[in-house]
Amino acid sequence: MSTINEKYLKLAVREAEKSRGHTGSNPFVGAIVVKDGEIIARGRTQAMGKDHAEVDALKKAGAAARGATLYVSLEPCCHYGKTPPCTDAIIAAGIRKVVAGIQDPNPKVNGKGFQALREHGITVECGFLQKEISRQNEIYLTNITQQRPFVIWKTALSLDGKYAAQDGSSQWITSDASRREVHKIRAQVDAILSSGRTVNLDNAMLNVRGVSKARQPLRVLLDSRLRVSPLSDFVRSAKEYPSLIFYHAAPLKNILSLDITGIEMQQVPSNDQGLDLQYILNSLYVRGVRSILIEAGDTLSSSFIAQKLIDKYIIFYGDLLLGGDKAILKSLPISNISQAIRFSEISYKKIGNNLMLTAYP
Amino acid sequence: MSTINEKYLKLAVREAEKSRGHTGSNPFVGAIVVKDGEIIARGRTQAMGKDHAEVDALKKAGAAARGATLYVSLEPCCHYGKTPPCTDAIIAAGIRKVVAGIQDPNPKVNGKGFQALREHGITVECGFLQKEISRQNEIYLTNITQQRPFVIWKTALSLDGKYAAQDGSSQWITSDASRREVHKIRAQVDAILSSGRTVNLDNAMLNVRGVSKARQPLRVLLDSRLRVSPLSDFVRSAKEYPSLIFYHAAPLKNILSLDITGIEMQQVPSNDQGLDLQYILNSLYVRGVRSILIEAGDTLSSSFIAQKLIDKYIIFYGDLLLGGDKAILKSLPISNISQAIRFSEISYKKIGNNLMLTAYP
Repeated sequence: MSTINEKYLKLAVREAEKSRGHTGSNPFVGAIVVKDGEIIARGRTQAMGKDHAEVDALKKAGAAARGATLYVSLEPCCHYGKTPPCTDAIIAAGIRKVVAGIQDPNPKVNGKGFQALREHGITVECGFLQKEISRQNEIYLTNITQQRPFVIWKTALSLDGKYAAQDGSSQWITSDASRREVHKIRAQVDAILSSGRTVNLDNAMLNVRGVSKARQPLRVLLDSRLRVSPLSDFVRSAKEYPSLIFYHAAPLKNILSLDITGIEMQQVPSNDQGLDLQYILNSLYVRGVRSILIEAGDTLSSSFIAQKLIDKYIIFYGDLLLGGDKAILKSLPISNISQAIRFSEISYKKIGNNLMLTAYP
Repeated sequence: MSTINEKYLKLAVREAEKSRGHTGSNPFVGAIVVKDGEIIARGRTQAMGKDHAEVDALKKAGAAARGATLYVSLEPCCHYGKTPPCTDAIIAAGIRKVVAGIQDPNPKVNGKGFQALREHGITVECGFLQKEISRQNEIYLTNITQQRPFVIWKTALSLDGKYAAQDGSSQWITSDASRREVHKIRAQVDAILSSGRTVNLDNAMLNVRGVSKARQPLRVLLDSRLRVSPLSDFVRSAKEYPSLIFYHAAPLKNILSLDITGIEMQQVPSNDQGLDLQYILNSLYVRGVRSILIEAGDTLSSSFIAQKLIDKYIIFYGDLLLGGDKAILKSLPISNISQAIRFSEISYKKIGNNLMLTAYP
């Protein structure tokens, strides 16, 4: 049975994938209605506030849904949010059996969806393609379980792990194609986070370039004393791209000189590791930021990694050796190899002569 | 035509591959005899002093070779070595046409093989699958054109380019499977080269372990003052595994204490970069060493790389981040990114959660 279940759930996952980036903070879900071994409808999560995948599929199936099996990648909701409960629609449609990929850890659902269905005599099975579906909705699942944005750390290195040559030059370690890939990743997150120091060193814009119809993520700097240069491209483009700087204690003149640029500044607590990163992530979450891409230098990157706040690592490797001591993550406080940051899952993608590595702790 | 030529030369390359490791310092070559669109014989280089691929194939074809086409991965030889010229055998067999992959840069051949065939009315075409065949015989081609061993540099790194954690611990950065792969690579080279310092730090044996029927490569240390510890496993196993230490100027007591261990010592000149690496490579070549695997620390590795003496790079990446400043190739004298060691060709192989990268400058 599990082979048939997986077969249809794979189609549901594929259906869900089409909704990626179009569901706001909702998970993106796919649903397949099957009757007598025939697929009679496919559905997927619509825009925020519109039909969930189950309802989308059931509407398409119409009266034919009676007695059918519904395959759905995530447990159906059973609460009133922006839309009525999907369980009601499933029960009303006369579905006989529901096969779900994973349970929804949202406290408002978390098994209650299945329970509601079973109470109405519907057979429920759950627990298929769990790894794949959890990856597909990694942002939503992290949001729901940790109440903070999903955090991706990205860097570009030579094959010997250097982010620059001895004189600081780093243009370019990776290829055009790799850098285009970075802009595609930027276009998929809600915020890009870096440090004032990185902006001052690299004059980084931290915006999305070369991606058609891309939305611009919120640009976020961590800059405890507000030392980012008012002459930097980042600051000068603040009216064009939404920008926010977190600081702790800054001289009044720094506050004033940034204030006239239109950049938003937010004062946050600090601890012995610098600005309170957990506080900052929570602040961003409250603002609606569901995913963050960190592109920062050694200090800030090491802090996030050491505090186990990174959910996904992306490293681009160029086709070169640089030597020298500009090694990334120098400040990571690991003394013995037993304390290393280990990855449970790694995948690689070749981009010409470059390599894009994706890893999960 | 080139598609047909490539089709049969691909088979010749595959045939040649079966001789890898069994031809001594000879190139390994494959040959296919084709008549009226039918393959009538396949041949490959036999052991040193035995038949070359062409003769092996022609013997199998017998009288049927008359009027046939011979596909051969490398230009046939036209000189007396340990065997008579292959061109004579080709002419005598009545071959009408020879299609070769690449020309043999050996000064004794280098186009003269083709010339001898043409002078006997045989049609000759050359220049197919050149990249593939050059890679297949990278050791031979480097030997012939540079009169030195083919040099492979190998290291094992964390994903952030560190060879150890801060306290020096490095067991293990890579997986069992990766380390088995290293032993397979060791078993394919004539010598493994490292430094006295690496042996003292890691107590490295530099031998082949866990590979059945493996021959043991010559173990070579560069150790200018002969400071390798007589208590190291390397020195203590010198009677079991052939070993050679190159030094420049050492205290008599060091010479004497190593002398009784059975280790061979050779004094070599030095220059402002340390021991004269070119001299050492030539010495090893004269001894019959055709390929070397370098497994060394920062200083020695950086010297070889800076002097452009590495023909092939192999980096194993483990599934971890180590942070800190134990970055490989610190001493590589690159100040600006424009001076980086760039690779023209890179390939990757996934070994579980590890990655094996192979790169050519």
